[in-house]
Amino acid sequence: MKKRPLILVTNDDGITAPGIRKLIQIMKEVGEVVVVAPSSPQSAKGHAITLDATLHVNRLKTPSATDNEYECSGTPADCVKIGIKEVLKRKPDLCVSGINHGSNASINVIYSGTMSAAIEAGIEGVPSIGFSLLDYDWNANFEGLESYVKTIALNVLSNGLPDGIVLNVNFPKLSKEPFKGIKVARQARANWNEKFEKRINPMGKDYYWLSGVFENLDGGEDTDEFALENNYISIVPVQFDLTAHHFIDSLNNWKFS
Amino acid sequence: MKKRPLILVTNDDGITAPGIRKLIQIMKEVGEVVVVAPSSPQSAKGHAITLDATLHVNRLKTPSATDNEYECSGTPADCVKIGIKEVLKRKPDLCVSGINHGSNASINVIYSGTMSAAIEAGIEGVPSIGFSLLDYDWNANFEGLESYVKTIALNVLSNGLPDGIVLNVNFPKLSKEPFKGIKVARQARANWNEKFEKRINPMGKDYYWLSGVFENLDGGEDTDEFALENNYISIVPVQFDLTAHHFIDSLNNWKFS
Repeated sequence: MKKRPLILVTNDDGITAPGIRKLIQIMKEVGEVVVVAPSSPQSAKGHAITLDATLHVNRLKTPSATDNEYECSGTPADCVKIGIKEVLKRKPDLCVSGINHGSNASINVIYSGTMSAAIEAGIEGVPSIGFSLLDYDWNANFEGLESYVKTIALNVLSNGLPDGIVLNVNFPKLSKEPFKGIKVARQARANWNEKFEKRINPMGKDYYWLSGVFENLDGGEDTDEFALENNYISIVPVQFDLTAHHFIDSLNNWKFS
Repeated sequence: MKKRPLILVTNDDGITAPGIRKLIQIMKEVGEVVVVAPSSPQSAKGHAITLDATLHVNRLKTPSATDNEYECSGTPADCVKIGIKEVLKRKPDLCVSGINHGSNASINVIYSGTMSAAIEAGIEGVPSIGFSLLDYDWNANFEGLESYVKTIALNVLSNGLPDGIVLNVNFPKLSKEPFKGIKVARQARANWNEKFEKRINPMGKDYYWLSGVFENLDGGEDTDEFALENNYISIVPVQFDLTAHHFIDSLNNWKFS
């Protein structure tokens, strides 16, 4: 019998989030699962790592003795680092992060804790995938995603991924219509038009809440946003070589001396 | 007389760090300077933003009435967002971040608060540059950088930058030899080989400190690491479209159904 693959599962919403519980359940059909996920929500933490504070890792007491679940006091990237080095003590065959409660399509990938975990695994040479659902609700409906999540994970396990590339998978918010299928896409050019809401605290001091309105600046029909708007699941291959290679020649013509 | 450019200055080491004080001094020769920088150090915060806590911004009382300096309780990316929307209430002509105490070359760009500020400005359509010195010491020697920092800033102001690209500038640690010049480079493929130091606290509970050894996995002579090792200043054009465009065709051949 073929050895089952070892799968590291993490997220940024915290180990108790319904999204990661669903992902764990799906991954158990694919391989041996070890969970190392944040003790508390870590959304919008970007690729933060913990250098100025101590890290704690605790094995969870779960109903089943076969469960391997650890909560970590750090960020999603910390969870991957300590998961590989101290919990597994080897590289897993696959790392999956999510299922995030909310979009990590287009520019959200930059702010995303979910994707920072997937990227951290990629940096360490582990094939990895971030999964997100365009529903920010804690009680988001994750039904209907199972077969797609499993198919994508099995594809990564059988095809592998080139060095330096991880997958960013986003699911449209569930509607009455079933998903139309999967579209491989590029990251849309978009941004958040920030709004700062100014308030005054009981001591008379100003403070702000950050919020904003999402703006898709990209008219392309090959983007993740376009796929999602049309009820397709989007897959963007994401790289952590941030070099704008196409601009190197131009930059060499600048006058630096 | 030509209007002087408006320059937003920020960093991740905090508003009192010697690196930003040097950058402010240099930028005052280039244009009108407004500083919005973190109240406290924010290193390795990646592209974190503050959604689950309030933000505070205070104007500093500085010796000169012409100084426009604000400290912000948030991350570097928060500083740029609130700097543009609430302090300047317009887009500056240039955003500069740094000078960081420590390298943001190669994979460090992913973890970097300095570069997250520069990238945030780029997302908002502001030409921007992150500056870093390969010296982690709080009392790092920033002498000899001035003319290069100024030249690079003036080049960005006169040439502009294409949408979606910002510059990542790293200086070698100062030695007895002067810098050999500037090299336009690509991001080296590198990673940190993490080491977790396990200790036991006075209550008998395990905890960890994250540290690691930097590993350059890239033999290329066109990388930022190669330039820096040879006493050149490196400039990498950095993009926040993370799509691995070259892998889209391959991914379309995967069997998803």
